[in-house]
Amino acid sequence: MWPKFEGSVTILLNLAGVNFLLSKKFFVKLVPPRLGDNLADCDRLLSALLVTAGKVSVPLGLLRRLPETLRAAEWRVTAILGRTEGGWRLQEVEAGDTTASHFGLAVDAGTTTIAAAVVDMTAGTVLAAASGENMQTSVGEDILTRILAAGQPGELERLQALLVMSINEVAAQAAAGAGIRVREIMAVAVGANTTMTHFLLGLDPAKICREPYIPVANAPGLFRAADLGLAAHPEAVVYCLPGVGSYVGGDAVAGVLVSGMHNREEVSLFADIGTNGEVIIGGRNWLVAAAGAAGPAFEGGVLQHGMRAAPGAVFRVKIHPQTHEVDYRVIGGVKARGLCGSAVVDSLAGMLLAGIIDRAGRFRDGREEFVVVPAGEAESSADIVITQQDIKNFLKTKGAVNAAVETLLEAVGVKLQAISRFYAGGAFGEHLDVEAAVTIGLYPDLPRNRIVLLGNSSLEGAKRALVSEAARRSLTKICGRITYFELNANGDFMTRFAGSQFFPHTDITLYPSVQKKLRGGGIIKA
Amino acid sequence: MWPKFEGSVTILLNLAGVNFLLSKKFFVKLVPPRLGDNLADCDRLLSALLVTAGKVSVPLGLLRRLPETLRAAEWRVTAILGRTEGGWRLQEVEAGDTTASHFGLAVDAGTTTIAAAVVDMTAGTVLAAASGENMQTSVGEDILTRILAAGQPGELERLQALLVMSINEVAAQAAAGAGIRVREIMAVAVGANTTMTHFLLGLDPAKICREPYIPVANAPGLFRAADLGLAAHPEAVVYCLPGVGSYVGGDAVAGVLVSGMHNREEVSLFADIGTNGEVIIGGRNWLVAAAGAAGPAFEGGVLQHGMRAAPGAVFRVKIHPQTHEVDYRVIGGVKARGLCGSAVVDSLAGMLLAGIIDRAGRFRDGREEFVVVPAGEAESSADIVITQQDIKNFLKTKGAVNAAVETLLEAVGVKLQAISRFYAGGAFGEHLDVEAAVTIGLYPDLPRNRIVLLGNSSLEGAKRALVSEAARRSLTKICGRITYFELNANGDFMTRFAGSQFFPHTDITLYPSVQKKLRGGGIIKA
Repeated sequence: MWPKFEGSVTILLNLAGVNFLLSKKFFVKLVPPRLGDNLADCDRLLSALLVTAGKVSVPLGLLRRLPETLRAAEWRVTAILGRTEGGWRLQEVEAGDTTASHFGLAVDAGTTTIAAAVVDMTAGTVLAAASGENMQTSVGEDILTRILAAGQPGELERLQALLVMSINEVAAQAAAGAGIRVREIMAVAVGANTTMTHFLLGLDPAKICREPYIPVANAPGLFRAADLGLAAHPEAVVYCLPGVGSYVGGDAVAGVLVSGMHNREEVSLFADIGTNGEVIIGGRNWLVAAAGAAGPAFEGGVLQHGMRAAPGAVFRVKIHPQTHEVDYRVIGGVKARGLCGSAVVDSLAGMLLAGIIDRAGRFRDGREEFVVVPAGEAESSADIVITQQDIKNFLKTKGAVNAAVETLLEAVGVKLQAISRFYAGGAFGEHLDVEAAVTIGLYPDLPRNRIVLLGNSSLEGAKRALVSEAARRSLTKICGRITYFELNANGDFMTRFAGSQFFPHTDITLYPSVQKKLRGGGIIKA
Repeated sequence: MWPKFEGSVTILLNLAGVNFLLSKKFFVKLVPPRLGDNLADCDRLLSALLVTAGKVSVPLGLLRRLPETLRAAEWRVTAILGRTEGGWRLQEVEAGDTTASHFGLAVDAGTTTIAAAVVDMTAGTVLAAASGENMQTSVGEDILTRILAAGQPGELERLQALLVMSINEVAAQAAAGAGIRVREIMAVAVGANTTMTHFLLGLDPAKICREPYIPVANAPGLFRAADLGLAAHPEAVVYCLPGVGSYVGGDAVAGVLVSGMHNREEVSLFADIGTNGEVIIGGRNWLVAAAGAAGPAFEGGVLQHGMRAAPGAVFRVKIHPQTHEVDYRVIGGVKARGLCGSAVVDSLAGMLLAGIIDRAGRFRDGREEFVVVPAGEAESSADIVITQQDIKNFLKTKGAVNAAVETLLEAVGVKLQAISRFYAGGAFGEHLDVEAAVTIGLYPDLPRNRIVLLGNSSLEGAKRALVSEAARRSLTKICGRITYFELNANGDFMTRFAGSQFFPHTDITLYPSVQKKLRGGGIIKA
């Protein structure tokens, strides 16, 4: 019922942001009620919002506070609206014009690392970012351990709480960096793999790792922060980036969005070499996806001295080809505590080129480990090493990614060299040295200008989803266009996987630039 | 994201009910997931509903249970969808085809009496009905006392709880009558005056009774049963019939809907002579409304021996014009406990025609009361009487309704005799004798075929809202078309009110048939 509209309201709004945010603010000056203009408080506010937002639903708690809020603010209020499946709901009513302060939180909820950024919803800019550990690692370093743990009574709830606590801690850091209270966050967008999305929502992930590998939800919709326990305004809208299958989640789909490959005529390849090694190939006309789920050898904890990219992590390693002398750099300039992913890649490439390991990853002199940081320089006063087992684990993950790429390429009849661009996504790629990654076969041996490092594309995708409805629509469209290959049950993949555990690859001719280097160094025969 | 739809679902549905219910059921046979058809559980169900319902939001609790529910039911489930502001949300998923059992609850939440009916949502028929007392009467018989009480700390919550308990008790009775559990109720529609709607939602009614008389909400939208504490499925949709002002609520608007007067060319008059005496006049081209809020003299409790229409209530009274002998009838055939509204009207008409009271309501022989039921026949062994004070109170309320009608008619320039139909609504009218009501001036003195008793039009309107979206749209449209007159601050009304406290009216010529009777009986001069 919207009677007697004339004269009872003045709408001041910035149309620029309409329809593009997960939450939006409108400043309205309402004419106070009087005899002859007796519109109810709620109807008076909603009338003012009708033209721009259409029908808006009002949560009971907010409705109960409304009369006092409107009168205390002398009928000049900022209404904050949050996206719902079919429209908008009122999230908050603030006194006066607060449209200049409107915040969202973008989250990349990784298996090992949580990253978050506070976003200015109006400007679409990042105000502050932070990252921290996923506290679920206390239950299990790798994701399969956690899925199995979740089957025990009470453990799913505990895993959910641990993830939410982890996100909240990082959110609090980012909010402090931006100089805001977490309560001012009105929208949260989360990029995560399918299992992490399940944990965040408290959904049972049990069927993700059992044939036929079915998630509870790929596009779980919109939730309230209070329902999940997230540190934000209780009515903050929570949007989980949609995924396409048990092993290709919202984080990978974000990679496609950020790369823009879904809009390009040529065929591109996106790989997120994190927990699962998600691979998406295609362009404007088709997209295929798969994941080589071979364990998180690239994330902290699985390697003996692995750790996430935090202060104390060695992130750059150079091994002299002849003297085998090691030069390394540590994040934060403190004493070394462990090796992050980029250091492992650097080390393996260096060891290969120096002839310390052979193409199968075996130490040529029969030793059991390679010392990257000697005890005297390490925080723990113990050698920081890469062991034979570490190399085996690493080869498995790398091999899984290679096998996934090759299985997909074979299925769609495209040669690797025909790939116009290789996009490396995920938090892992941040410090990565492209040459080293190609040397060990983690990245394909393409002309280097075709290799694009996207950085944390999951976080970037979440940021875009926060401030752009077009981005959210694109994510949904991308999901709808992706054909998902379940490699867990694919014989071709298994064969390739078994035979692919070499540096850079079983078939060295696929890596001509590496072949040349190895020949030059006398590591392989000319 | 709705990929790979073909072949994965079979939809069996009855299109007849689509879009017309506050809640609807769909039986779907889903093809179980397998390798190559790995749609997530939730997406699989929603895909099946997409064609008919569009986008459906899924509450977190339901999402968490979904995998087990679908598998236990072997992928043959009934999805229950509830209306939201912008579309539908999933309310429940039941194993197998349960579409034949789908229930709603229509409620008339009156100041004194609660009535409820269990409705078969598919057939649109009433399965069972019940009524009971509004337990808020323990806080105050009249509505103003309760509004004032609600201003004390904790009292609003207590009044809300009392109303919800009252509704729940009546709902439980009706459910028992229908042979269902209250948990099977998936939708609730509530017709109530504006203050009762406020109490139901826990909204502060303080501003309803203070100038400029502004409710918190007239069209409060849709809520969940669990949020209000209503005895129904926790996800049941609760719809409050929209009102137009502090004193013309959803119960009165329901009266317009049920009468159909808003669709008729001629001018009709609807009056709900309950708590407020709401009056709505008009037709297809215009509608005006007002309420003569002069206290609930027609409801139980205000009169010394008044009670609601329940077993033990005298509901029919005949007074012999000469002997003054009283003949009365009691609801339930038990000993008399008090007088319900219709008995009061009968008694007053009888006393007037017998010359026991004069047109100003005064006892002609100076007595203080009239005995309707002598002590020996009453349950309490005390006389059941109508006192001089009762008559005064009654005249006030009746006068307020008369004054409201006349003020509105004057404002729109329509003569009472031009009214094509007089609709009497509200629970009160159920047992009312039309001749008696006209005799004392409660109903206008129109040709009797123009007087229509609607019965409990608030309950009937709630029933229609439950099963018909068209009815809900009509209610909204009616509200939008009604011009509301606030009589609390209207000088013309106050003058008329002060001068209108006579039987049947100050101006006897407005009541020609009564004038004739009174002359015939020698009560007034020819």
